Amino acid sequence: MTNAHGPRHVVVRNIERAPLTVLDQLATVGTATVHEAIGRRGYVGPHITPIQQGTKIAGSAITVLTHPGDNGMIHAAVEQCTAGDILVVASTAPSTHGMFGDLLAASLMTRGVRGLVIDAGVRDTADLREMGFPVWSQHVSCQGTVKNTPGSVNVPIRLGEQMVDPGDVVCADDDGVVVVARREADWALEESNERLANEEQMRSRLGAGELGLDIYGLRDKLAALGVEWVDTLDG
Amino acid sequence: MTNAHGPRHVVVRNIERAPLTVLDQLATVGTATVHEAIGRRGYVGPHITPIQQGTKIAGSAITVLTHPGDNGMIHAAVEQCTAGDILVVASTAPSTHGMFGDLLAASLMTRGVRGLVIDAGVRDTADLREMGFPVWSQHVSCQGTVKNTPGSVNVPIRLGEQMVDPGDVVCADDDGVVVVARREADWALEESNERLANEEQMRSRLGAGELGLDIYGLRDKLAALGVEWVDTLDG
Amino acid sequence: MTNAHGPRHVVVRNIERAPLTVLDQLATVGTATVHEAIGRRGYVGPHITPIQQGTKIAGSAITVLTHPGDNGMIHAAVEQCTAGDILVVASTAPSTHGMFGDLLAASLMTRGVRGLVIDAGVRDTADLREMGFPVWSQHVSCQGTVKNTPGSVNVPIRLGEQMVDPGDVVCADDDGVVVVARREADWALEESNERLANEEQMRSRLGAGELGLDIYGLRDKLAALGVEWVDTLDG
Amino acid sequence: MTNAHGPRHVVVRNIERAPLTVLDQLATVGTATVHEAIGRRGYVGPHITPIQQGTKIAGSAITVLTHPGDNGMIHAAVEQCTAGDILVVASTAPSTHGMFGDLLAASLMTRGVRGLVIDAGVRDTADLREMGFPVWSQHVSCQGTVKNTPGSVNVPIRLGEQMVDPGDVVCADDDGVVVVARREADWALEESNERLANEEQMRSRLGAGELGLDIYGLRDKLAALGVEWVDTLDG
Amino acid sequence: MTNAHGPRHVVVRNIERAPLTVLDQLATVGTATVHEAIGRRGYVGPHITPIQQGTKIAGSAITVLTHPGDNGMIHAAVEQCTAGDILVVASTAPSTHGMFGDLLAASLMTRGVRGLVIDAGVRDTADLREMGFPVWSQHVSCQGTVKNTPGSVNVPIRLGEQMVDPGDVVCADDDGVVVVARREADWALEESNERLANEEQMRSRLGAGELGLDIYGLRDKLAALGVEWVDTLDG
Amino acid sequence: MTNAHGPRHVVVRNIERAPLTVLDQLATVGTATVHEAIGRRGYVGPHITPIQQGTKIAGSAITVLTHPGDNGMIHAAVEQCTAGDILVVASTAPSTHGMFGDLLAASLMTRGVRGLVIDAGVRDTADLREMGFPVWSQHVSCQGTVKNTPGSVNVPIRLGEQMVDPGDVVCADDDGVVVVARREADWALEESNERLANEEQMRSRLGAGELGLDIYGLRDKLAALGVEWVDTLDG
Repeated sequence: MTNAHGPRHVVVRNIERAPLTVLDQLATVGTATVHEAIGRRGYVGPHITPIQQGTKIAGSAITVLTHPGDNGMIHAAVEQCTAGDILVVASTAPSTHGMFGDLLAASLMTRGVRGLVIDAGVRDTADLREMGFPVWSQHVSCQGTVKNTPGSVNVPIRLGEQMVDPGDVVCADDDGVVVVARREADWALEESNERLANEEQMRSRLGAGELGLDIYGLRDKLAALGVEWVDTLDG
Repeated sequence: MTNAHGPRHVVVRNIERAPLTVLDQLATVGTATVHEAIGRRGYVGPHITPIQQGTKIAGSAITVLTHPGDNGMIHAAVEQCTAGDILVVASTAPSTHGMFGDLLAASLMTRGVRGLVIDAGVRDTADLREMGFPVWSQHVSCQGTVKNTPGSVNVPIRLGEQMVDPGDVVCADDDGVVVVARREADWALEESNERLANEEQMRSRLGAGELGLDIYGLRDKLAALGVEWVDTLDG
Repeated sequence: MTNAHGPRHVVVRNIERAPLTVLDQLATVGTATVHEAIGRRGYVGPHITPIQQGTKIAGSAITVLTHPGDNGMIHAAVEQCTAGDILVVASTAPSTHGMFGDLLAASLMTRGVRGLVIDAGVRDTADLREMGFPVWSQHVSCQGTVKNTPGSVNVPIRLGEQMVDPGDVVCADDDGVVVVARREADWALEESNERLANEEQMRSRLGAGELGLDIYGLRDKLAALGVEWVDTLDG
Repeated sequence: MTNAHGPRHVVVRNIERAPLTVLDQLATVGTATVHEAIGRRGYVGPHITPIQQGTKIAGSAITVLTHPGDNGMIHAAVEQCTAGDILVVASTAPSTHGMFGDLLAASLMTRGVRGLVIDAGVRDTADLREMGFPVWSQHVSCQGTVKNTPGSVNVPIRLGEQMVDPGDVVCADDDGVVVVARREADWALEESNERLANEEQMRSRLGAGELGLDIYGLRDKLAALGVEWVDTLDG
Repeated sequence: MTNAHGPRHVVVRNIERAPLTVLDQLATVGTATVHEAIGRRGYVGPHITPIQQGTKIAGSAITVLTHPGDNGMIHAAVEQCTAGDILVVASTAPSTHGMFGDLLAASLMTRGVRGLVIDAGVRDTADLREMGFPVWSQHVSCQGTVKNTPGSVNVPIRLGEQMVDPGDVVCADDDGVVVVARREADWALEESNERLANEEQMRSRLGAGELGLDIYGLRDKLAALGVEWVDTLDG
Repeated sequence: MTNAHGPRHVVVRNIERAPLTVLDQLATVGTATVHEAIGRRGYVGPHITPIQQGTKIAGSAITVLTHPGDNGMIHAAVEQCTAGDILVVASTAPSTHGMFGDLLAASLMTRGVRGLVIDAGVRDTADLREMGFPVWSQHVSCQGTVKNTPGSVNVPIRLGEQMVDPGDVVCADDDGVVVVARREADWALEESNERLANEEQMRSRLGAGELGLDIYGLRDKLAALGVEWVDTLDG
């Protein structure tokens, strides 16, 4: 997005979203399972962590691209949010600023927004926890921001190790954040449910004392790779 | 502080402090608000984090400058502490050592000290939480220390991104640590209270569905900066 | 462990362990005290942190050496575990992968394993906390793994700043992880108990208002090192 | 790229490339200018640095997606390389391994490959410099690798802050690496040349003593933003 | 520096500087020696490194405080620079942006400025080395900047571990950057020269085979601290 | 190494070393080759880097264990050094201090010491390069040190990812540092020479245009692992 005179800055009003029923079901699956189910993809990385414990959500991404230390575009994004959305904020360069606090959360909660994912910092974390507005961020920081530099809303952004398109499904829990392409949402749910069933069965067998070594057929495979079972290190 | 033969090391006995009533009121404000109120200053950075959750304090800084891995001067500082103080420990070079544990906390609690801020590590964190002695540190670490190298108490120190003079007001909560110059304490409280009132009003308006985009007059400003509202990315 | 054609990979079946009674007593001591008691040694470093709060364990190390992003050898290790053990996993190079989750925990719990220490990542952390299976790790990460590359079980490994031999005693709590050589386990317990008694006495004296400065004889020592007590900084 | 049973792994043989004449001209521009010319985009970040000094290249990306510590797919990629290409290697998770050395460089040089960009490590760096094979990497590391885990060649990959499609133009010099979409290569060259002309003119004016403050009209802009020119800090 | 409505932003025109003759002599001393001579103070830390090798400078600090990713205030600072100055740029929060390149260097060179020290990034590093304009920075980065947010020139700033006042003496070489308070410049030079003489003498004695152990009287001191000389580890 | 009252501190005078002829030959091999030859072991990690370029050495480790910021024990170690040795310094906790400079280098050069490896910082780097004394360190830093805290010489230490025993062979070049157990030195040289011969042959074949894919038999192996060769991504 550029023109001859620099980057182009837009707020895109109309985006497509996955159905709420799919979001609601993906929310309960858990990020690790969704990540595995879609082919070990979509994880944004361990640097984005929750400020609360025990919360699991999924929603449609409203994306924001901001200049470091400038949260004006987050305000522009609020207007584009609706029930079931998750605000996903990326910076044009690394930033530790506290870009988001309890006032913006109050604003988002009136619109039914389910949470925030941001690659910079947040503040008022005690209030956010008390309000029940869930946040996944790279930093917690008091550092205040300005509103001077243009950016964009609902354009493709990079968040950690993933690209996020507006309307993509964002799943978040204690393990972090996983992104599912909007068009793959149905398939992801299907694959996740299949995996959940398999995991349930595995849990039973392992809980009954069976070994992964046997269930996965690893004994022969490891031996073929050169692993030897010995009685002692010198054996 | 040097003489011809190396750094000079002192323990300064008499320092000025802000009034307890001002400290007590600043404690309730919250670091993010104080930081904004005094002109977006005073934040020590996101690397100093609390070992507990939900605690808010303010107090007068008793400053300590130590050699990495040497906590002898922390013991020297205890004697200079009185009710309402916060111990603020900086190292002459980066250190991860566990410089402070439950015994020093017990000692400080008998003097009415409100907490510890340290740019190195602490240990006995389960005990510290159980004792209710609040700590903000850069690391949690078992690594033990020695008592071999001189340092200073109640001299100006650098803590993260801030200089701290003895007697400065230290505010700390879940968002981190903010330092207010002692002579600005009254003004900081005044500005903070004004800001709290504004935030309260903002919270009401945002909670009623108004947008920051309108309240802050950002629509025209962002448009003037080149932001375009479009229906679709190609629009 | 090599042969002419590359690293040698083994699973060692028989290792010696410290007595369970010693493990159980060391578990209650706390890592900081054990670390001090054995001469300020054994701490693996501040990068290995617990995913839960308030848990204290000790156990015999079952060691695993894995290729980054490959957890096949963890499955091989499960079979070698028995009641009172702690699984200790190291990587041949830095890794952030989520190498371990609730299924492996279920498997280990049936065998009476007390916890996991790993220099990579774990996932399903909400489930692990709910199951009560304690974990100390370097990362929390969804990132899935493969089972393609050989490694070893019950060989000496490096975990952070320490070497760990199979059967060594691993102590872990909110302050992190400390390793005690198996042959030093009895002595470590003895020294720890002696230190606990001293600490108890110190706690009483400090709680009664005595100063570490006096108890440790630091006044004269610091003065000899050049520290001066002055009334003001210019004094 | 997945199927129902995990990630799908492919080596794509046919990719489109930008014309060599465009690559050759972009090579001389320099990364900072290209980055500005295309709207301040395409920079992969400061963590990818050259192992040599004073080399400027541009080429068509042959992309590789590898498992950490496994360089089998780099060998698969060599066959897909032709004159004017640059090998671009990304890992499925962070890795410090030395994935590439003088033997692979010898292989690539016979095919006219212009260099390597990798988000992991390289080794034999003294040899690589002597051979004149340029490399930009995240690490220098001896750590050896295996050839056990599948990956892909010529699929879209994420390299630092950018997505790279096979055939995209990679520009690299002492400032790092910038990626230009293949379809934008002509336009990028045009914009770069325009910018070079402007920079040349600016250089003359600044070298003659004119101020950026005047040339960019910053005096009024900064004043409007609240900047005051004063004689002394108290003035 | 605040008023009731936020941070105050100023460009201060008149600052005091140390005499050029003192700067020129301090330039030749080397940072490590100056740092020791003034009591082991003034070092900004190992994260600020030179982009060139073998250059030693000293000059008067023209300080700049900027918003991350915004270099408008650097242009404002150029006008305040004169022969013998060094531009010292700090950010209000961490930043990796390429804030400075060859055009700004050309501008500064016409005014006799001796170099740049910056806690963010620079670009055009090949050109800067060719031009002979020395730079010490935290990052090398292509990432472009804007000119939208006010800041200040010639106010006290924090640079790594040090506070820098305008007019302070900045010494920089291959070991990094050391700051000397302007009022201590004469004394620092005197102490440095004394130390240089001592070091010269030490160099002769050590080069003749004498041991630091003897020259510094460390044998007895270490023995008193508990060090034992033994023939073998078991000895 | 402890006694009942804390860590025990010793300087061990007599250590065994590998023959100089073996050291001299290992020096020419290069660290990456030695690392591979001994089973992909011994590499200390990418954080220890050379301050010079193009130097290759090998020598017998004289080990030093120091308190952070305290270089007294390095002076004690000098006396234990002889021709062919390399000084290897580890800290009891992370440290960035400049523990070593040109005076200590002068002292070591009179004894025929071949270089320094240190997990902390060094200073006087321009002088060290000019003197031709090679150094591998974790940091470059001016930060001065004290001589107050006991440590040990010629005891086993941990250096990055490796344990180093006194007398072990240290190999260092532009790729970093590899440690070879003293008793394995002969075998390591033999394996290295064999590997060098193989590499030479590989270099010829690859330089003649053969592919690693064919030489290593990777086509079938990768296909068996699920890699497909396709004409286009959709193919």
